[in-house]
Amino acid sequence: MLIVMRHGATEQEITRVVGVIRDLGYEARLMPGAQRTAVGLVGNDGRVDASRLEGLPGVQEVIQVTKPYKQVSREWQPEPTVVRLPGGATVGGSEVVVMAGPCSVESERQILESARQVKEAGAVILRGGAWKPRTSPYSFQGLGKPALKLLAKARDEVGILVCTEAMDPEGVGWVAEVADIIQIGARNMQNFSLLKAAGRSKKPVLLKRGMSATIEELLLSAEYLLAEGNHDVILCERGVRSFDTATRNLFDISAIPVVHKLSHLPIIADPSHGTGLRDKVIPMARAAVAAGADGIMVEVHPNPDAALSDGAQTLFPDQFAQLMREVRAIAEVIGRRVAEPASVGA
Amino acid sequence: MLIVMRHGATEQEITRVVGVIRDLGYEARLMPGAQRTAVGLVGNDGRVDASRLEGLPGVQEVIQVTKPYKQVSREWQPEPTVVRLPGGATVGGSEVVVMAGPCSVESERQILESARQVKEAGAVILRGGAWKPRTSPYSFQGLGKPALKLLAKARDEVGILVCTEAMDPEGVGWVAEVADIIQIGARNMQNFSLLKAAGRSKKPVLLKRGMSATIEELLLSAEYLLAEGNHDVILCERGVRSFDTATRNLFDISAIPVVHKLSHLPIIADPSHGTGLRDKVIPMARAAVAAGADGIMVEVHPNPDAALSDGAQTLFPDQFAQLMREVRAIAEVIGRRVAEPASVGA
Amino acid sequence: MLIVMRHGATEQEITRVVGVIRDLGYEARLMPGAQRTAVGLVGNDGRVDASRLEGLPGVQEVIQVTKPYKQVSREWQPEPTVVRLPGGATVGGSEVVVMAGPCSVESERQILESARQVKEAGAVILRGGAWKPRTSPYSFQGLGKPALKLLAKARDEVGILVCTEAMDPEGVGWVAEVADIIQIGARNMQNFSLLKAAGRSKKPVLLKRGMSATIEELLLSAEYLLAEGNHDVILCERGVRSFDTATRNLFDISAIPVVHKLSHLPIIADPSHGTGLRDKVIPMARAAVAAGADGIMVEVHPNPDAALSDGAQTLFPDQFAQLMREVRAIAEVIGRRVAEPASVGA
Amino acid sequence: MLIVMRHGATEQEITRVVGVIRDLGYEARLMPGAQRTAVGLVGNDGRVDASRLEGLPGVQEVIQVTKPYKQVSREWQPEPTVVRLPGGATVGGSEVVVMAGPCSVESERQILESARQVKEAGAVILRGGAWKPRTSPYSFQGLGKPALKLLAKARDEVGILVCTEAMDPEGVGWVAEVADIIQIGARNMQNFSLLKAAGRSKKPVLLKRGMSATIEELLLSAEYLLAEGNHDVILCERGVRSFDTATRNLFDISAIPVVHKLSHLPIIADPSHGTGLRDKVIPMARAAVAAGADGIMVEVHPNPDAALSDGAQTLFPDQFAQLMREVRAIAEVIGRRVAEPASVGA
Repeated sequence: MLIVMRHGATEQEITRVVGVIRDLGYEARLMPGAQRTAVGLVGNDGRVDASRLEGLPGVQEVIQVTKPYKQVSREWQPEPTVVRLPGGATVGGSEVVVMAGPCSVESERQILESARQVKEAGAVILRGGAWKPRTSPYSFQGLGKPALKLLAKARDEVGILVCTEAMDPEGVGWVAEVADIIQIGARNMQNFSLLKAAGRSKKPVLLKRGMSATIEELLLSAEYLLAEGNHDVILCERGVRSFDTATRNLFDISAIPVVHKLSHLPIIADPSHGTGLRDKVIPMARAAVAAGADGIMVEVHPNPDAALSDGAQTLFPDQFAQLMREVRAIAEVIGRRVAEPASVGA
Repeated sequence: MLIVMRHGATEQEITRVVGVIRDLGYEARLMPGAQRTAVGLVGNDGRVDASRLEGLPGVQEVIQVTKPYKQVSREWQPEPTVVRLPGGATVGGSEVVVMAGPCSVESERQILESARQVKEAGAVILRGGAWKPRTSPYSFQGLGKPALKLLAKARDEVGILVCTEAMDPEGVGWVAEVADIIQIGARNMQNFSLLKAAGRSKKPVLLKRGMSATIEELLLSAEYLLAEGNHDVILCERGVRSFDTATRNLFDISAIPVVHKLSHLPIIADPSHGTGLRDKVIPMARAAVAAGADGIMVEVHPNPDAALSDGAQTLFPDQFAQLMREVRAIAEVIGRRVAEPASVGA
Repeated sequence: MLIVMRHGATEQEITRVVGVIRDLGYEARLMPGAQRTAVGLVGNDGRVDASRLEGLPGVQEVIQVTKPYKQVSREWQPEPTVVRLPGGATVGGSEVVVMAGPCSVESERQILESARQVKEAGAVILRGGAWKPRTSPYSFQGLGKPALKLLAKARDEVGILVCTEAMDPEGVGWVAEVADIIQIGARNMQNFSLLKAAGRSKKPVLLKRGMSATIEELLLSAEYLLAEGNHDVILCERGVRSFDTATRNLFDISAIPVVHKLSHLPIIADPSHGTGLRDKVIPMARAAVAAGADGIMVEVHPNPDAALSDGAQTLFPDQFAQLMREVRAIAEVIGRRVAEPASVGA
Repeated sequence: MLIVMRHGATEQEITRVVGVIRDLGYEARLMPGAQRTAVGLVGNDGRVDASRLEGLPGVQEVIQVTKPYKQVSREWQPEPTVVRLPGGATVGGSEVVVMAGPCSVESERQILESARQVKEAGAVILRGGAWKPRTSPYSFQGLGKPALKLLAKARDEVGILVCTEAMDPEGVGWVAEVADIIQIGARNMQNFSLLKAAGRSKKPVLLKRGMSATIEELLLSAEYLLAEGNHDVILCERGVRSFDTATRNLFDISAIPVVHKLSHLPIIADPSHGTGLRDKVIPMARAAVAAGADGIMVEVHPNPDAALSDGAQTLFPDQFAQLMREVRAIAEVIGRRVAEPASVGA
């Protein structure tokens, strides 16, 4: 951490900054410059609260040098994390994994049909929400607990892994009983009570980037999970808020190489929420794989026009099959391979 | 809702849109234009899911005409909501209410001293966090439940109302036992499990605008509270995320007149989080009151340099006293009055 | 255009809106709804100023139905524009065109060497700035007119097309004498005097998206060029401003399919400015091609570490050659082909 | 400037960074830390191009310590700049100056009537556009040069100062002949050819903040003016682009205290463009003055409903008179005074 003093800061002000740094238990190092003095805080373990120093008289700016996250960083662990799923599938190695399914679980018939269709096309994991975080209290909020039973049935009968979202600490327990991956949604990326509960569960966690979260904040939220002992974390880019309404969100594909450089955790991409428009999902899924994503998550429904939520961004089953073919070819260009459906359940 | 068809959409495509609208239980009205046809959906009660229509063939765009919120709107209730607090204080009438105190409760001595100082300067409500939502798992997270006892003691001994944050559904119950106002923080504005729990409590709720929430989303989150039966809702502008790092957040003062036009709910402003810098808090607090805010919330600490969190944006007690004087004068210019401390507790 | 009246708007207010619409020379159509009345303005030719209607008493909102651009739209011209360049290269057809070269022209040796290297690797067009728009007046501002001569020499001796930027109306004339494509930079996307001058020139124009321009604004700036008679317009996505500082800009790859749907104009992508970081340029260039870009523009320098501007985002020649190989393979996956260098000049 | 090396950077990599710094003519200072080494560049005069260092092997990040602007900074000149206008009015001292008038000059009658009305209510400067930068080529673009004559007539007959916009280097000359203040619009904040031309004129310049410009970029654009020798620069906050469409722009009132801290230049606020909505202009104008703005600029028209541009955000004359009364009272609360109309022209 570097504490930059104002031009003309007094000796006394500098001495006070040095004093506060030592009070906090760190070493202070003076760095006189041409225009102003800076004070380096040496030994920062990521726990120093900049706010304590920013307000001192004579301080112009406090600059973070050390990254505030630890266990999620490439420096902590240089080799990539590989999350191992039942049936042998992995996320974070050389394979590109595909998760697909409807926005929400609507009925037994719908979820079983979805599971069969996406597995046949090549998806390894079935997605589908039991609880749906909706902006309006009057929108369809998901079937709740009964949906978990339907997902369990789809897992057993079709033999496909399951990923579904938990919305509160209590829900983590329910989801963990059924799902192979617990999803934490974008709106809950900084719901720290939820993160702590998921960090204590024994299941892999899919952590979606918040609506306007920086990559650093995403990594810090992942750090909550690792700090609680759960190392099986998969990050997910799903678009961030921007000023243009041409797409639902601005799908930040560059987050993929950025995360790969800063962290050892795998990152997948969700072009369905990332764009919000069916005809944009296919090109953007291809783009994400070309950029090096460790997987993609797409919404597919047997009959999107009748979907109870997110219909406009949901693929028809034959569109999804076509997408799988293109994605396989692009993965090969960059020396990767799309994972084949594992055999679980049935 | 207006469904705009593409230029050259076929009769069949238009007929299908009309059919889906009728299936959903609404009336469809054709509006042929010079360049394209639009179909009006009449009778929208706010529950129509645009997504269902957006994906249909031939549809170019779906335009919301009706606002998606209901009970929070000025059309639902033209007269302003006035939230009545113990001791006679009100939020949302002609008075401007001031909430002040430290970022977090740190010790008995600190919170009692804070309570006395802010009350003496004219604050009606003491703020102070028991649990702190922190971006990093390694930052100070608040004292937790013991802090609630200290707040209760401050309330009793100093005779000042208390506002503090709940971070999960379980915490709502604990906070409601002690606080006069339950705060829901910016990161939890779309934590719907938490909103539902707060909506079922009997205490007034202070709902902070999310980091990158639109006003419409803020109002929809408030709608969750009203839909559960809690009508004592106070909104709070606290800055939104922007591209400039010159301030911690971009403090959106225009949210005040915008909310006042769309909704009957009171809205206060938090210039401490809104700017993140002590020397910006005073001018921006004045600005918020000049723009018509129903109150302000500011961070004050007996010794900001030693604060365990948010020190850089925290006022010294004498700065706060000066701010109170300026704010009183500005309130009068626009025909309002800063509320006097009520007598509660002791 | 749809003028939505407030709930409870009076007959008189509605009559006035109808009157103003008729005064403007359009037809007004009443659309009574369940909660409020709307008035449709029929016959909008894109010249109606919403502002005139927004301020009328009783009006809640004015909604644009017709897009404000015309000649650039897919509805105006369904088949894609193909820009034909000297030597037979085309932009906007089935080929993917690659433009490459240094940020700025620094010396004869540097630009000739750059031209040879990028042509050898497969680039069709040499890029290189004569004038550089720099945020600071103290940064290197380009060699100016002498650089144009060096570009002309590179064109002649190496036999490669040239694209370079004009910064003001006077500069358009100078650039048009030498370059095959006149570039308009992001900061000048809404420099309307410059757009008009470029629209009157006879050379193709590469129009870069502004720092925070919506796609609609980009298309409206292109409309300025077409309205002046220049139909050879190539759009360019180069990243937009966002809240995250992890990359220089947020490279909006979804702009590619969005533009392709709304407009017949070709769109290329510039991952060098889009990310600002060398190791992100390669994955993002691949992603842009996978998403359907009609070309890419990348910064390459014989010795990036010694570049006078933009060194950190500039590829080494061998990195560029590797990129070309990957991009060719990805183009084939989606049924396209990377264009081969044309023979011009020498 | 601080060059932060990656954890585990080699001796060789560090030595190379030191070498490049010395090649650039600056001093390098090693700062070994607990987790990584940093290299300080000492003697930075604001001309160092970070890009040169960012791309070197082993470099993780380059951090700017010195601000990139010079002459506009408070460190360069601690006392505030006071711009002196004909007739004795000043901008940047203790007075708050009001500029008002229509968006564009439409006719002799309209501009003369506007001039009289705004002067009578207390405005010191008449605003009104001769050329209007419009997003669409089909919108009203202003009367052009004839409008300058009408402004000159208003100045002479009514005796009020005039501020109007120049859109290109050629236009600067024409505007400078007539206007007391040359305005540079938001879309042209980084039109460097225009800035250089305005910097060479002898008239005060009103520089509006760009649509998505940071404060630092605004100050750097001002630096272009000072670097050319023009020190009479007035900055103007007019709202920035954001994700919420509830207002036309997000009016960033905190820019006022931020600029006052970093720079000696005066800053005024334009709540008309800042909000885009008539009923938000009044509260936001009050807020700007309460926050310490050196002036406000508001759009007023004798008949806003008939205005050819920006009608929805334009005040009626009696609304403006009311605004003046409130603004005078708020200025007094913070120890300032609204300037009285000067006597010029007639």
